[in-house]
Amino acid sequence: MRIKIINPNTTWSMTEKIGACARAVARPGTEVIAVSPAMGPASIESHYDEALAVPGLLQEIARGEAEGVDGYVIACFGDPGLKAARELARGPVVGIAEAAMHLASMVGSRFSVVTTLGRTMGQAWHLAEIYGMERFCANVRACELPVLELEVPGSNARERITDECRRALAEDGCDTIVLGCAGMADLCDHISGVLGVPVIDGVAAATTLIESLVTLRLATSKHGELARPLPKAMAGALAGFTLDAPQG
Amino acid sequence: MRIKIINPNTTWSMTEKIGACARAVARPGTEVIAVSPAMGPASIESHYDEALAVPGLLQEIARGEAEGVDGYVIACFGDPGLKAARELARGPVVGIAEAAMHLASMVGSRFSVVTTLGRTMGQAWHLAEIYGMERFCANVRACELPVLELEVPGSNARERITDECRRALAEDGCDTIVLGCAGMADLCDHISGVLGVPVIDGVAAATTLIESLVTLRLATSKHGELARPLPKAMAGALAGFTLDAPQG
Amino acid sequence: MRIKIINPNTTWSMTEKIGACARAVARPGTEVIAVSPAMGPASIESHYDEALAVPGLLQEIARGEAEGVDGYVIACFGDPGLKAARELARGPVVGIAEAAMHLASMVGSRFSVVTTLGRTMGQAWHLAEIYGMERFCANVRACELPVLELEVPGSNARERITDECRRALAEDGCDTIVLGCAGMADLCDHISGVLGVPVIDGVAAATTLIESLVTLRLATSKHGELARPLPKAMAGALAGFTLDAPQG
Amino acid sequence: MRIKIINPNTTWSMTEKIGACARAVARPGTEVIAVSPAMGPASIESHYDEALAVPGLLQEIARGEAEGVDGYVIACFGDPGLKAARELARGPVVGIAEAAMHLASMVGSRFSVVTTLGRTMGQAWHLAEIYGMERFCANVRACELPVLELEVPGSNARERITDECRRALAEDGCDTIVLGCAGMADLCDHISGVLGVPVIDGVAAATTLIESLVTLRLATSKHGELARPLPKAMAGALAGFTLDAPQG
Amino acid sequence: MRIKIINPNTTWSMTEKIGACARAVARPGTEVIAVSPAMGPASIESHYDEALAVPGLLQEIARGEAEGVDGYVIACFGDPGLKAARELARGPVVGIAEAAMHLASMVGSRFSVVTTLGRTMGQAWHLAEIYGMERFCANVRACELPVLELEVPGSNARERITDECRRALAEDGCDTIVLGCAGMADLCDHISGVLGVPVIDGVAAATTLIESLVTLRLATSKHGELARPLPKAMAGALAGFTLDAPQG
Amino acid sequence: MRIKIINPNTTWSMTEKIGACARAVARPGTEVIAVSPAMGPASIESHYDEALAVPGLLQEIARGEAEGVDGYVIACFGDPGLKAARELARGPVVGIAEAAMHLASMVGSRFSVVTTLGRTMGQAWHLAEIYGMERFCANVRACELPVLELEVPGSNARERITDECRRALAEDGCDTIVLGCAGMADLCDHISGVLGVPVIDGVAAATTLIESLVTLRLATSKHGELARPLPKAMAGALAGFTLDAPQG
Repeated sequence: MRIKIINPNTTWSMTEKIGACARAVARPGTEVIAVSPAMGPASIESHYDEALAVPGLLQEIARGEAEGVDGYVIACFGDPGLKAARELARGPVVGIAEAAMHLASMVGSRFSVVTTLGRTMGQAWHLAEIYGMERFCANVRACELPVLELEVPGSNARERITDECRRALAEDGCDTIVLGCAGMADLCDHISGVLGVPVIDGVAAATTLIESLVTLRLATSKHGELARPLPKAMAGALAGFTLDAPQG
Repeated sequence: MRIKIINPNTTWSMTEKIGACARAVARPGTEVIAVSPAMGPASIESHYDEALAVPGLLQEIARGEAEGVDGYVIACFGDPGLKAARELARGPVVGIAEAAMHLASMVGSRFSVVTTLGRTMGQAWHLAEIYGMERFCANVRACELPVLELEVPGSNARERITDECRRALAEDGCDTIVLGCAGMADLCDHISGVLGVPVIDGVAAATTLIESLVTLRLATSKHGELARPLPKAMAGALAGFTLDAPQG
Repeated sequence: MRIKIINPNTTWSMTEKIGACARAVARPGTEVIAVSPAMGPASIESHYDEALAVPGLLQEIARGEAEGVDGYVIACFGDPGLKAARELARGPVVGIAEAAMHLASMVGSRFSVVTTLGRTMGQAWHLAEIYGMERFCANVRACELPVLELEVPGSNARERITDECRRALAEDGCDTIVLGCAGMADLCDHISGVLGVPVIDGVAAATTLIESLVTLRLATSKHGELARPLPKAMAGALAGFTLDAPQG
Repeated sequence: MRIKIINPNTTWSMTEKIGACARAVARPGTEVIAVSPAMGPASIESHYDEALAVPGLLQEIARGEAEGVDGYVIACFGDPGLKAARELARGPVVGIAEAAMHLASMVGSRFSVVTTLGRTMGQAWHLAEIYGMERFCANVRACELPVLELEVPGSNARERITDECRRALAEDGCDTIVLGCAGMADLCDHISGVLGVPVIDGVAAATTLIESLVTLRLATSKHGELARPLPKAMAGALAGFTLDAPQG
Repeated sequence: MRIKIINPNTTWSMTEKIGACARAVARPGTEVIAVSPAMGPASIESHYDEALAVPGLLQEIARGEAEGVDGYVIACFGDPGLKAARELARGPVVGIAEAAMHLASMVGSRFSVVTTLGRTMGQAWHLAEIYGMERFCANVRACELPVLELEVPGSNARERITDECRRALAEDGCDTIVLGCAGMADLCDHISGVLGVPVIDGVAAATTLIESLVTLRLATSKHGELARPLPKAMAGALAGFTLDAPQG
Repeated sequence: MRIKIINPNTTWSMTEKIGACARAVARPGTEVIAVSPAMGPASIESHYDEALAVPGLLQEIARGEAEGVDGYVIACFGDPGLKAARELARGPVVGIAEAAMHLASMVGSRFSVVTTLGRTMGQAWHLAEIYGMERFCANVRACELPVLELEVPGSNARERITDECRRALAEDGCDTIVLGCAGMADLCDHISGVLGVPVIDGVAAATTLIESLVTLRLATSKHGELARPLPKAMAGALAGFTLDAPQG
């Protein structure tokens, strides 16, 4: 099968890391395409960044539909544009926060999320709520690390994140850790080894989930809210997003 | 004071109607600016449409900041981009679904929302939840009228909407009606007169709420989640959305 | 328009302060009537006090109906008698806790309430719940100041309250403050100035909200739970509360 | 032990029926005192009625404290004044809606409440929520019978109520019935016999619960919210409710 | 009446203590049968222990049905097998966690549970949720005492539990204590005397509740989920649990 | 990898069907072991049946641990013994209701469960709640088909289930179907083909999920509630379940 991992920010070094983490867990027969959009923010650390990441993300979904992609992963822990992407895609679409939280609820009694900047904690709680995972979420914690610092060789990001995970385990009453940024995907094994509890990276989690959904031939239901958007005019700089009426 | 009502779709006939409804309830000293964005969908009837309406909306917020606007109304019942807009604005920002639902909870025990297409009902329920208004929401009902049909003179939109409101009152255990589309703003008095219960149009409701917030000098808190977004590069067609670092 | 602010306790010095705060934000054409009831407790700090404040409050609503009042504010943070008042009034009725919490949810992501005695915190949480505002309420904090100490010139009430607000901001993960007593109405500007976040006084908030509802011609729905009470005999010391049958 | 059943309305024929139902289930050694207050409404069918029933109820609690009462039952399905009564009483206080709903949750999977007038259904749902019993409450149904019609010999109240209970069982997915008015206490056996499911009258339920609490020496906690109200002046017609400062 | 208290573990010293605590509060005419099952774990401190305690418990229910038992108490704070027991019994069945939490909600505003091992706290929270008592539960605390240490004369269990209760009262915002293990039944009076707040032992609480239900002739509803299980074959070591078809 | 699918009832024809459905979606390298326990009920249609299925299920987990099993599926829609199984297993354990509901939440906005007997609907709702999936569950519907009738060749089970799914889609506001019994696993493709929406069989869903967890090296967290049970004596017919102390 062919799956597409979309890093909704435009920092390709992160995209490559994400692609590698996805390929490390993907099945032998799975082709993993990892991309960043042609437009949007270099990193996503606010509602503003998230909103501006979505058009580029949707462009990649539309392109994927033409390329015969079987399923999509949105590889930013805010899961931006998830419902819009589901409307556009024929196959399934999974967000990495969604994937990580769901799997966390199956291997522990409660998880804590460890994320980058404090200002994004509200979004993590919001996602926990709309996925029904709030009851499993013991806490959301921030390291106050900007996303792009995770890409800087020689930064002490790994230590700071590991320390925050350790504190979560000691103080939150949780037994499982969810890493709250796609840029942390490569830290999962290290932290799990140090702490001895399940540590979940959403990129890997979503990769296996999207493979599962494709294997089960479960695609987004087109009966209702997530049906293909109605064709209509898009004005100005976004004119390229105009959808044609279905042919037939 | 100067308030800006942003109709996030690009259909200016609707924008003019919205502006008129806002001015009809605004205080004497209030200047009401009603606009549509330069980019985005002609109407908003899906998550896809909503996502693509947000960049244009944010452009209008940014422009408003330069124009000395005191407060903003987002005049689409999906309240698209509300949190991103709050990050960007110094003053308060209110969505029309938010405004209508809050006021409905103060004049009745439960309200029903009557909206356009069935596929948007999920978003109305979602907003009721995140605003804390789910406990007051008896039902969300759709007339299966496309948004732009509300703009067609001679359509039977008014009758169909009134009928749906009547059914809501008879069947839902509600005592108040919330109109679920900015394009219904001009129907509020008619339906209220016919049914004899409070019928709430979000455009008027949000106009008076934003005036209240400005009068009370209550602006969006910049302490935490809704602080101004961090400056960073935006790529491609959205490069114009790059925020500068604060000066000083 | 004519609005009536009812301080449900019988301490007129507080009533005058409340009236002044309401007038400071009211529109030019609004007549603000601020009163205390003829019966009931000197301050409200328990469920017992609250229960005994309601008859006097309802008497003032009944009187207001005869006086052509357009809308009412209940100016005690426990919002005593709100539903009974809504049954009795033709126009809208808003409580100050209700008003403050709703507006707080529009300018920040979460608020903390700072109130007087610890024994009233349960009621503040209860109101947050029934208004749907619990999800926005980060914490309720008490200064252990009796209500009437707020009226004592030279007490250090202002400092203690400001300190508690500062702690809320530092410890609760909130970005907005709600003042939990009508007697704090005059402290709002000071604390907001010191802390640099939105600080909301319910008296001012409710004043602008009731003006909004009157402007929008939104009165309490009489279709169901909040219809006028049925006429029936009242015995003993409360015989004066007997309602007549509606005349035809 | 000595327990006091307070019917908060002033209709003594109902009070006598309530007393008889309580005595029918009370233990041999229990003295049951059944009273109506000296002031307040003839029946309770609105928030207004409820508010005006509370002062008289509190007067009876105060009197009971002087009489050595061990525990109290508030015998109106709206459980008016429950928290205020708990502040005032040394021993335990239970409401009949509270008692009925709690016991219902122990003998079935879900219950429906069958009550008098539709306008009181909101209060029944409210109580279900604040007691934590909402998850067990399948439905609240009204017969549109005024409370005092239950006292009229020869009315068809029993048949109408039985029919509504039968419909509840057929349509609501419930397996247990809660009778929603103290005036229905004498119908419990009949309806249970006809329908073959548990039918719960709150008066009997509360009587056995208050006996249990007294037996277990469990009185209202005075550590916090339900501590005795602070002494303070009460003005006007309610001056008699002034509490003295504790002596000693 | 004849009630049966089933201690679902096989430690008879605890069963005797439980029986004594039940008899201390039971009515004069009540016959209390206290038993442990013939199979299962010596103590219950995990989901595994709980699961393996249920068959023996059900055997005791089946035996009780033959012995004319009127009602049952499940005397382990995890309330194992409660719904299965209700299916099997004609009369009512109450769990001690259920009983303690319900009564706690009637005498205070919030309770804390003090239990044995930390690994059982999740089950206590789970029960609070399914009984609707989560809103009253301020905290669940563990002393890290194994259950059987409560049976060791000369252990310092009483002091450790009392200390944990004291901390609960100081830190949790609760005003009532629920003891989280049947083996603590004999400590209730001591702790209550020391702390001066209601302290609730589920064994005594459930004893009076089951007496109440029997007095009120309220038995488990057989209309739906809790109807008698369908007859069917049981294989292997559990063949003795095969139910016969009802005879006609 | 080696995964074990445990059908907790003792009807081996169903076990074989379940095994076939699991193998149809399993990866090439996955060894699927499908078993029924040596003790317990022939089918599971009550809390009683469920409770008695758990010991046999746990025996199969214990055996699997000795056999080097990597992960387990509990193949009954009540997910009996899930937490006890997780305590016992080193690897992950997933229930089929859990798996189906989680995946349903990723491909649609709301699902309906279609199950066998009405008396099991309460358990389905309970699972939806504890998995956080209640918000996605539009309805639970029963066909009133006993479980073993699904095994009878020539019964009209397929038609009745398909019809109930069609009604769900028409009446419940759902866009996805979850099949509520392991015995329906072979009907999934048929119903999906007929209705054109995602139809989810928990056996297949859980098979791919357990493969995902094993691939991701995510095993049950042993830090807290789900740690291995403490060693202790088991009495009587269950003596074989005694756990040894861990060896060092």
